[in-house]
Amino acid sequence: MTSPWPDIGTPLEQILTPMPVIDEDRLAANIRRAQAYFDEHGKAFRPHIKTHKIVAVAEAQRAAGAVGINCQKISEAEVFADAGFEDILITYNILGAAKLARLRALHERMAHLSVVADSATTVDGLAAAFDGARPLTVLVECDTGGRRCGVQTPEAATELAVRIAAAPALRFGGILTYPAPGGAMAVEAFMAETIALLAAKGIDCPVRSSGGSPDLWKSHLVPSATEHRAGTYVYNDRSMVRAGHCTRGDLAMHILATVVSRPAEDRAVLDAGSKALTSDLLGFSDFGEIEGYEGARIVSLSEEHAVVDIGDCRKSFPAIGSVVHIVPNHTCVVSNLFDRMVFHRNGVVTRVEDVAARGTVW
Amino acid sequence: MTSPWPDIGTPLEQILTPMPVIDEDRLAANIRRAQAYFDEHGKAFRPHIKTHKIVAVAEAQRAAGAVGINCQKISEAEVFADAGFEDILITYNILGAAKLARLRALHERMAHLSVVADSATTVDGLAAAFDGARPLTVLVECDTGGRRCGVQTPEAATELAVRIAAAPALRFGGILTYPAPGGAMAVEAFMAETIALLAAKGIDCPVRSSGGSPDLWKSHLVPSATEHRAGTYVYNDRSMVRAGHCTRGDLAMHILATVVSRPAEDRAVLDAGSKALTSDLLGFSDFGEIEGYEGARIVSLSEEHAVVDIGDCRKSFPAIGSVVHIVPNHTCVVSNLFDRMVFHRNGVVTRVEDVAARGTVW
Repeated sequence: MTSPWPDIGTPLEQILTPMPVIDEDRLAANIRRAQAYFDEHGKAFRPHIKTHKIVAVAEAQRAAGAVGINCQKISEAEVFADAGFEDILITYNILGAAKLARLRALHERMAHLSVVADSATTVDGLAAAFDGARPLTVLVECDTGGRRCGVQTPEAATELAVRIAAAPALRFGGILTYPAPGGAMAVEAFMAETIALLAAKGIDCPVRSSGGSPDLWKSHLVPSATEHRAGTYVYNDRSMVRAGHCTRGDLAMHILATVVSRPAEDRAVLDAGSKALTSDLLGFSDFGEIEGYEGARIVSLSEEHAVVDIGDCRKSFPAIGSVVHIVPNHTCVVSNLFDRMVFHRNGVVTRVEDVAARGTVW
Repeated sequence: MTSPWPDIGTPLEQILTPMPVIDEDRLAANIRRAQAYFDEHGKAFRPHIKTHKIVAVAEAQRAAGAVGINCQKISEAEVFADAGFEDILITYNILGAAKLARLRALHERMAHLSVVADSATTVDGLAAAFDGARPLTVLVECDTGGRRCGVQTPEAATELAVRIAAAPALRFGGILTYPAPGGAMAVEAFMAETIALLAAKGIDCPVRSSGGSPDLWKSHLVPSATEHRAGTYVYNDRSMVRAGHCTRGDLAMHILATVVSRPAEDRAVLDAGSKALTSDLLGFSDFGEIEGYEGARIVSLSEEHAVVDIGDCRKSFPAIGSVVHIVPNHTCVVSNLFDRMVFHRNGVVTRVEDVAARGTVW
């Protein structure tokens, strides 16, 4: 049996489903447009590779002008370091002897590795695992309203920065936040106050990094930030369209699925379940949007089936065997399910890339 | 750098997180107990491998007495056929030239392959792709209340069975359903009526297959069924405990996660996000249960973080750097995220198995 992955030149109608596919032109436009925005506003842009986990896509982001890349775990960073990326920020508290040993090995073989910390425990662990001959750059993660990780106040950020700066094995790199969507004013206030507190102690704060695709186009509203991080913008998804951060014409990822059953008048079933779309709702009440069939709703997923309520679909839903295009609620989790990703231009396959950092779990 | 996967003999405390781990003794007991139940009631048992996707686990299920295995897609079946499994039922409507060609190639190299159909379109596609020299066995899928795929009435099931029986390239194998939980009476009624309708036409209905872990222990309430299919029972999960289908002592899978942040009084953050736990809620309002910390609730996931509300946790929540054990809402989707699976006995690693059918997407 030949490989089930499509050859270059294959029309999308002939590929096996369920399968996510990436539109080359929209991908390139998304990369270009975001970088142009940051260039215009004089800010560094650091794409988060969690969305695609593909070396070639990160290379395109770097070629467009990205200052470096953002990873969320050591194992992701190892893949991209292997591929020659020299400036990687891991926005995670790295803890425990096994992970610290891997982090140190990574640091020893690349030019610019940095991580974040939001507690004395994390800082002290890093300080003990590294040494002054080649200090590790550490940024303080700040909670500016996203309510995930991060120190809670500019005073706490300053205190942790002092602790980092005092450790011979570490270098204080700056401050970082993953804000709540729409939180530009809160980010600016937190950053400005922290910078002032640090200055009063004679500590420079070179990098001030904010993040998130939802706030990408509002980065100029955070004058204190020197850098922005974002992942989803590269493919975009249904949640980004809903929030007005992109148009439907910017959607680079679709999931191709086949209609496998039409068991009842008001019900169709597709071959894309939670193992292709994931169960991420991101505030929607259904699991993705079927392009061109307004009113058809993916009301439930089992692992390999999507049940579609077509009772309110305004036009005749496709027959069994037809292929539909689904806009996923959330692209990043879809990438994480597939070992390879199919790219196309105008519906013809251009390449199939390894999702090299998929399955890198620690 | 050495492999990050643990060696045999490694204590679980030393493995990298986030990581699902399987308790050998509970796994073996789950396999044994289910098979003993079906043996006692004189029914065939066909485990669904979607839950684990691991050859060695399916071999244990077969050794215990399983009649064969159940797969949900051709690519899964290919992996298990390669591993020497000779009786595979793919409970899916297979459609389209590319998939039919792969299905035929699979059929040609194994002893007992069967599939299902719930429409004339699917039956006609199968009939055209195979030939009478080596007919393919096809079961009619029936919707007995699960509201996914399946013909809607015993009359429609009979009509489709006649169509299959009339096709020289196909052999009518029987009827199959994936019922709504608690639907034993509906399954029995549908099956008994269909068997009678078929008998009136002189058509034998050798296999009557029902399924689902939720109804596993009620299979004896469906006297017409000759076989039962189930996946989740092998590991069990939080949803199975809630439904009373197993006890906490039958939970074979936990996800180890590290506390990476304690940013606020009422909040802890773990390193297991939607890329380790998935967003499957299965009716819960939180994303998994942290063993030993009643009242702590995983209230939100981002891709690599779980945010835990510890405001109502009855005991002191572990400090940064500590490892906790999470009972996942749904095991099957967790297996699908990891390339390898770590097994242990009493907290010491016994083996690391390839999740061989993970990433087999079509």
